[in-house]
Amino acid sequence: MAVALPVIFSNFRSSPSSSRSKISFNCSSASSKMELHNEGRTKFMEFPYVSAPHRKLMQHLISTVENRLGSQLLPCTLPPDVQYYQNQTGTAHASLHIRSGHKPSQSQIDFLLGSWIHSELPTGGALNITSLSAYLNSLTDAPNFLIELIQSSPTSLILILDLPPRKDLVFNPDYLHTFYEGTQLDTRRQILEKIPEVRPYISSSLYIRSLVSPTAIMVRIETEASQPGRVEELIKDNVDPIAKEVLDIWLDQCACGKREVGETERAFLEKRDGLIKTKTFEVDLGSSFPRLFGPEVADRVLGAIRDFFTV
Amino acid sequence: MAVALPVIFSNFRSSPSSSRSKISFNCSSASSKMELHNEGRTKFMEFPYVSAPHRKLMQHLISTVENRLGSQLLPCTLPPDVQYYQNQTGTAHASLHIRSGHKPSQSQIDFLLGSWIHSELPTGGALNITSLSAYLNSLTDAPNFLIELIQSSPTSLILILDLPPRKDLVFNPDYLHTFYEGTQLDTRRQILEKIPEVRPYISSSLYIRSLVSPTAIMVRIETEASQPGRVEELIKDNVDPIAKEVLDIWLDQCACGKREVGETERAFLEKRDGLIKTKTFEVDLGSSFPRLFGPEVADRVLGAIRDFFTV
Repeated sequence: MAVALPVIFSNFRSSPSSSRSKISFNCSSASSKMELHNEGRTKFMEFPYVSAPHRKLMQHLISTVENRLGSQLLPCTLPPDVQYYQNQTGTAHASLHIRSGHKPSQSQIDFLLGSWIHSELPTGGALNITSLSAYLNSLTDAPNFLIELIQSSPTSLILILDLPPRKDLVFNPDYLHTFYEGTQLDTRRQILEKIPEVRPYISSSLYIRSLVSPTAIMVRIETEASQPGRVEELIKDNVDPIAKEVLDIWLDQCACGKREVGETERAFLEKRDGLIKTKTFEVDLGSSFPRLFGPEVADRVLGAIRDFFTV
Repeated sequence: MAVALPVIFSNFRSSPSSSRSKISFNCSSASSKMELHNEGRTKFMEFPYVSAPHRKLMQHLISTVENRLGSQLLPCTLPPDVQYYQNQTGTAHASLHIRSGHKPSQSQIDFLLGSWIHSELPTGGALNITSLSAYLNSLTDAPNFLIELIQSSPTSLILILDLPPRKDLVFNPDYLHTFYEGTQLDTRRQILEKIPEVRPYISSSLYIRSLVSPTAIMVRIETEASQPGRVEELIKDNVDPIAKEVLDIWLDQCACGKREVGETERAFLEKRDGLIKTKTFEVDLGSSFPRLFGPEVADRVLGAIRDFFTV
């Protein structure tokens, strides 16, 4: 994967397509917005640093969401240097793709955020993170969607896959029943748990631990160095089918399902959602971006996406 | 431990102290109430079927709570055949000890519930469960306390130790900070997690999983049959000091700490607490008691304690 690094790097710095992006960012016509979107999307969908099964899974998840919800989604209008960016020394590269939903009257989608991050490690290896998260708006109280794969060595992978609840489950057992018991989500977690190389992954942030559902898949896969390709095999045979199933459940029952949300409840939901987004921004993005990309790039990227996370 | 079984059994059936209990239950004077309490407490505090380190730990936890909160606690007034009971065939025995707090104006304690259950298993071994839970009332929103040790074989122990939150942590990050981050509760979980024989324990009930805090210790200790006494060693050296520390944190910061709770918040807290108790009664007690003690005994015991769990 390290071979791809300079290629991507030089492409971005000097290719005509990159210059076009910068120009189109200054235009406001629908066609140049689409051009900006399409260029960013192409780069994003490459997932250039991860293994084939990992890339295929991410591409499938994103295409599935786009096919199902496409008509409800606006193009990605992030500046080109936020859709794709790198640190000053060129050792860290990333792509970011955010699509808002149409106005709440036409869509239950708040926004979708997809990203990949590649960073060379001082130890010689590389850190690769790919993620897709989907936030719903207050037309519905149904859970959000989250998948994140973090690979810090050829033998180690962290998987976070969940439908994070948007209500206090202790106070809303019916909600727990509808989205978590009724959907049999826990059976997917149990399948993964049985694989010998799978261990629980416990986030160091208590807020993140509080955010996820009781059926959240948060696991660390540790394979033997003597079994090269085993992580990829596990992604292909185990992670892939389960992630697709969980996304399908989310699309059918959450993103496209209808829920009754009263006015008071809607106001409360907006407050709670807002808090979740603020804390996620702070805890997850706000702390890792400066470390990976330096303060300047982090400021630019975080500045451009802050609007999505603040109400 | 199986040796103790018939001794306890015959003691209960024919001893004069057991008959006295039945008489005193019909008296309502303060002194006979205390007699009923004291007899039940003596039996309860025996923890007759568990190992010495396990028994000592439970006795210490209960004495510590009683010493600290004693003046706020009413005596246990459960009928004698609920303070100590068994199934029809004499293969399952149990003791239950519940003490309410004085009126809310004088105490933040709703009630404390201690219990032990011993049940012979068809496979030849025995199941031993000991627990202590403490529920606070709406004078405070501080977390409750819960410890449960479940031993189903000489080489296997499940430990549940937590301060279950009384607020939605996602919506109340300050509360999360005060009681969970600030108290360094997670460091205790981390210590246990490092022991090679310790594995995470995941409750089959999603409601129970939702109830506990992100620092909850929910572990299964599985030792080798070739190392007899290893479970007891781990209780003595690891579980014991951590359980005592967590109880001290709860006593200092929750049971005896002062919190501002407004009227509206208090009403909501009462509703949420009520729901927790109803669901705990249903999921935990309501499902296991009939299985262990038969429907008749379960009805009697659950009938006597239902009042504590319903608002």
